Amino acid sequence: MKALVLHGIRDLRVHDLPEPEPGPGQVKVRVRAVGVCGSDIHYYKHGRIGDQVVEKPLIVGHEAAGEVVELGPGVEGPAVGRRIAVEPARWCGRCEWCIGGKPNACPAVEFRSTPPCDGLMCEVAVLEQSQCIPIPDTMTLEEAAMLEPLQVAVHATNLIGIRPGETVTVVGAGPIGLGCMDMARIAGAERVIVTDRLDYRLEFAKNRGADDVVNVEKDDPVEAIMRLTDGRGTDVVFECTNRAAGARQAYDVAAICGRVCLVGIPEEDEIVLGAHDARRKELSVQYVRRSRHAAKQAMTLLTSGRLDVASWITHRVGLDDAPKAFEMAAEYADGVLKAMIVPSE
Amino acid sequence: MKALVLHGIRDLRVHDLPEPEPGPGQVKVRVRAVGVCGSDIHYYKHGRIGDQVVEKPLIVGHEAAGEVVELGPGVEGPAVGRRIAVEPARWCGRCEWCIGGKPNACPAVEFRSTPPCDGLMCEVAVLEQSQCIPIPDTMTLEEAAMLEPLQVAVHATNLIGIRPGETVTVVGAGPIGLGCMDMARIAGAERVIVTDRLDYRLEFAKNRGADDVVNVEKDDPVEAIMRLTDGRGTDVVFECTNRAAGARQAYDVAAICGRVCLVGIPEEDEIVLGAHDARRKELSVQYVRRSRHAAKQAMTLLTSGRLDVASWITHRVGLDDAPKAFEMAAEYADGVLKAMIVPSE
Amino acid sequence: MKALVLHGIRDLRVHDLPEPEPGPGQVKVRVRAVGVCGSDIHYYKHGRIGDQVVEKPLIVGHEAAGEVVELGPGVEGPAVGRRIAVEPARWCGRCEWCIGGKPNACPAVEFRSTPPCDGLMCEVAVLEQSQCIPIPDTMTLEEAAMLEPLQVAVHATNLIGIRPGETVTVVGAGPIGLGCMDMARIAGAERVIVTDRLDYRLEFAKNRGADDVVNVEKDDPVEAIMRLTDGRGTDVVFECTNRAAGARQAYDVAAICGRVCLVGIPEEDEIVLGAHDARRKELSVQYVRRSRHAAKQAMTLLTSGRLDVASWITHRVGLDDAPKAFEMAAEYADGVLKAMIVPSE
Amino acid sequence: MKALVLHGIRDLRVHDLPEPEPGPGQVKVRVRAVGVCGSDIHYYKHGRIGDQVVEKPLIVGHEAAGEVVELGPGVEGPAVGRRIAVEPARWCGRCEWCIGGKPNACPAVEFRSTPPCDGLMCEVAVLEQSQCIPIPDTMTLEEAAMLEPLQVAVHATNLIGIRPGETVTVVGAGPIGLGCMDMARIAGAERVIVTDRLDYRLEFAKNRGADDVVNVEKDDPVEAIMRLTDGRGTDVVFECTNRAAGARQAYDVAAICGRVCLVGIPEEDEIVLGAHDARRKELSVQYVRRSRHAAKQAMTLLTSGRLDVASWITHRVGLDDAPKAFEMAAEYADGVLKAMIVPSE
Repeated sequence: MKALVLHGIRDLRVHDLPEPEPGPGQVKVRVRAVGVCGSDIHYYKHGRIGDQVVEKPLIVGHEAAGEVVELGPGVEGPAVGRRIAVEPARWCGRCEWCIGGKPNACPAVEFRSTPPCDGLMCEVAVLEQSQCIPIPDTMTLEEAAMLEPLQVAVHATNLIGIRPGETVTVVGAGPIGLGCMDMARIAGAERVIVTDRLDYRLEFAKNRGADDVVNVEKDDPVEAIMRLTDGRGTDVVFECTNRAAGARQAYDVAAICGRVCLVGIPEEDEIVLGAHDARRKELSVQYVRRSRHAAKQAMTLLTSGRLDVASWITHRVGLDDAPKAFEMAAEYADGVLKAMIVPSE
Repeated sequence: MKALVLHGIRDLRVHDLPEPEPGPGQVKVRVRAVGVCGSDIHYYKHGRIGDQVVEKPLIVGHEAAGEVVELGPGVEGPAVGRRIAVEPARWCGRCEWCIGGKPNACPAVEFRSTPPCDGLMCEVAVLEQSQCIPIPDTMTLEEAAMLEPLQVAVHATNLIGIRPGETVTVVGAGPIGLGCMDMARIAGAERVIVTDRLDYRLEFAKNRGADDVVNVEKDDPVEAIMRLTDGRGTDVVFECTNRAAGARQAYDVAAICGRVCLVGIPEEDEIVLGAHDARRKELSVQYVRRSRHAAKQAMTLLTSGRLDVASWITHRVGLDDAPKAFEMAAEYADGVLKAMIVPSE
Repeated sequence: MKALVLHGIRDLRVHDLPEPEPGPGQVKVRVRAVGVCGSDIHYYKHGRIGDQVVEKPLIVGHEAAGEVVELGPGVEGPAVGRRIAVEPARWCGRCEWCIGGKPNACPAVEFRSTPPCDGLMCEVAVLEQSQCIPIPDTMTLEEAAMLEPLQVAVHATNLIGIRPGETVTVVGAGPIGLGCMDMARIAGAERVIVTDRLDYRLEFAKNRGADDVVNVEKDDPVEAIMRLTDGRGTDVVFECTNRAAGARQAYDVAAICGRVCLVGIPEEDEIVLGAHDARRKELSVQYVRRSRHAAKQAMTLLTSGRLDVASWITHRVGLDDAPKAFEMAAEYADGVLKAMIVPSE
Repeated sequence: MKALVLHGIRDLRVHDLPEPEPGPGQVKVRVRAVGVCGSDIHYYKHGRIGDQVVEKPLIVGHEAAGEVVELGPGVEGPAVGRRIAVEPARWCGRCEWCIGGKPNACPAVEFRSTPPCDGLMCEVAVLEQSQCIPIPDTMTLEEAAMLEPLQVAVHATNLIGIRPGETVTVVGAGPIGLGCMDMARIAGAERVIVTDRLDYRLEFAKNRGADDVVNVEKDDPVEAIMRLTDGRGTDVVFECTNRAAGARQAYDVAAICGRVCLVGIPEEDEIVLGAHDARRKELSVQYVRRSRHAAKQAMTLLTSGRLDVASWITHRVGLDDAPKAFEMAAEYADGVLKAMIVPSE
């Protein structure tokens, strides 16, 4: 089978690898759609995220969906032919966080496409049965592939909470930021302000319901948001950029007693914050690591039409063209929002 | 001035009383609109709510709005001519609940139209400055009069919390129930089921966005809701009836780990619940007493158009016709939802 | 092996049964200590709890600890000889509550000694590997057997929360009530009042740190607690009796904005509550079903000496004398608090 | 009357000023004890905290207690002669945070000893009636003066929450850190680790119940705490230093899913944090601004003996010697923990 393998910084190659076979408790899946995630791009550009380093060739990709083609010994379902979304994480199930109902924080997690665990941009993959989430007939496989990033936005919103009538800023209008924007709107936010440095993304956000957008390279984002809010800031701020500066902006535009939700993975190793203002505002800050318990909720919001992720997909390519798609996404070229890899194309 | 005075059970009379004058810190207000609340009807029909008894003639009504006509000594605002909504409660400001940020639970509260504190169905009223909430130009005085019951629904929703994608049952489709239904919808509820015994109210709820409605006199409400939800029940239940049976229904249709929010004031003195099912479901139950900290939020939701209370008002009468309006509301006659008393008419 | 089997109301017999053998994923355990739980007594006296009915002979008991004697195929641990506490529940792992981190609410749970799932008052039992909780060397097997009821008190306290300086009432001074009392004290409660109808239990509570005790048959408990608290009631109330009247007392002695935690399993089928007072106090009520995520916490509190359950054990008998111990416990005879069945005696 | 006036950096002088007289609603108080707070020292050393700058001579001090000597017009209590603790904040009462039950976040607050509002290190002061908190006879005036800093620790603990059995690190063993340490212990923390750079403070902490202490200048605090906790870190971390580095340590020693409570006011203007670790641990971070709704709770914990602040007071001086006491406190000389100014001495 073909697979997309990262060998080092900006070195992505398509290989022909043997198909894996399912062991006991496992399921073999034909991968039909895999989204290019910001973290994939992070590994592509830097070879690492923090101390998670790509030390040997790694199949990338984890936002995946496909069809069951074979069941390993002892597996009763989902049935061959069933369409599934992939849960890319495999938790240990025994640590205090798994037992305590917070598996997303499991330190022994194996997460597809996080080194050293191979990802899913390949034609066929083997998964634990528990990693296969059957999807309803009304959901497309591309929507199913988007379930994973969508769950991050759902989980972030669950953690931070939004009351009807609150105001929200979303710092960064990539797919995670758009998901948080949509969730804020669905949760009854009175006003959602979105910032980014790319006009095409801001335009997309505006068309999708952002009340105001701010280009951080054309306008000082803190000043702009304070202007828009009569100096108050917003009740909630979602930070969804790959820049450390985003965190500082998030703190600075939060209202007194505001809640800041840090979702983005900065490219830098350090974040610099003001020492006094956040304390004087008595901010609450919540970091977000992937998601937990959010699949059913995300699926409900998708199938009811409240969330629409199909429109996020700006590009679709087969595995052979995937390296070019990564380069494009790394450079934010061609108006890319979400590139979808279609292994069978 | 004219005033509507309750003398005893179903004995409501219009009197000519001297106009009150504002003392230090007080404001004189010309009352322009006062809604007939379920608790007004409760006093009208029973002469009491629990141990709060109408022992001497009482001006009724507390859902009020009007215009400032005079400021007492030392009062700087709101300016004469300013339109205001009325906060009918006057908290002591010194008890542990007032100090602790929960003034709605103040045991020493004076609440307009709760004996022995006269209400606001009269031409002119005197209020503390802090009870006058200036309203924006875009809000009508009738909407302003509805702010008080709306805040109950806002507060109930704040207390119980709703996550996007959750399912909700509202037991009772009077104005409070409709407010909870609207709040649930605004907060992203996936599905809202409304029950009542009056078809015209269910029809109104249906037109306003209820996904399903159940007439509790034509169908067993618990069976019906279990049928609608594949036996699961709903995540959240708001109880907004004036029947003790409503509480039991609310418990019974809550899903496992569901949250039940008890808002209604039953006509009975006791509530009978099952002993085992609620425990096995590990329910959370929240009682609601009026509201706190919800005026700004309710106003935001009203002025943004997310909430529409104008359509709730089915009847408008002057003070002279108010006794007939009370009788009508007590009998749920003529399709009444919210009757509005207009003192100057 | 010997086993204690319930055949019907007050019909408990010791049988000689074949030893069970561990299948794949399972562990064979020699049972060393099993506490007699209130729910065991409930089945003994009534043959049912709510709609859970003993329809065929049932081995009773679920508060158990023992030693691993054999591992089934594929099981790597805990090692033979290891001492373990038993988690009596086996959750489905697939329902929304299991996935959502609330396995204790799993509707498909198999719970040892809840019909039709046999309990653990027998010499040898087979458990899933995940039901075996290794205990530290410093913990006795009797303490380990008490982990399960202790976790209920820990979970209840986690759900309801206690802030240092709050006041607490515990309605019912059986082992669950004593656990809640101890947890309240550990959590910094300023004052803990305990009620029961049995003087010997109140005396025990008093010796263990209750600030005040009230015998509900000698004194009106609501009046007594209001007298003790200058009419305020207490911030938190744990209901831990087997009487429906306990729930009403719990509501009535809760302070304004108080939190009521319903832990007990009433013998009656219905609970009757006042309709007005709880609403006017804006109470929060939390039902409790067993426990979740509490084993590590309970173990920490036990091994650090903050909790002392050894002193709760008033009686120890072998299986042959267990029927007599049940009768004694059912009648609250002989100063019984916790009777421990020691199968090997 | 004598008053201690800050003229600029390290320029503190004793002046003779006219006694203030109480206006309507105000109370005249003879100040009996005022603690030297870290923020007083901050102004003494830097002339500012963030953008709050001492631009003209300022009476310092806000941790105060005294006796009522005169009531202004219209004031009914507390009676002349009554001993009171001082609430140094005067909130506007009208902003959304005051109305919303979070007065400590009021942006229009007047706080005694925060420029331009004079403090309380003087013989006589005038306060609003609402700023006078009557204390019980069993409480000394020095304990009453300590109520204010104690409330900060109580509020921080309320915000962050501690479950019995959790582990806690306190970064910084000054009075606020000691308060948090005591609160953690009272709330049932299993283990409390305290760090500081001063051995005498660590020794004091150890004597007061710290399970482990770490001198951050002799040992790497993160390594030391990871060593003490088998690499896990602690569930809760209170940051109570005047160093930005404290925040970084707090983040780094928090366990996965840990909660970090930032109480300290750093001398630096910026805080530098790692970008990845906190996100991967999904930390929750809560900033703390002074306190709210904590006076009753702090008083309860003091009068019950659970908290003991008397032992914190290492020095007592009259106003004439106060400048020397400030210099000593600024240099952490002479084993100073809390210096108490006694104006009448």
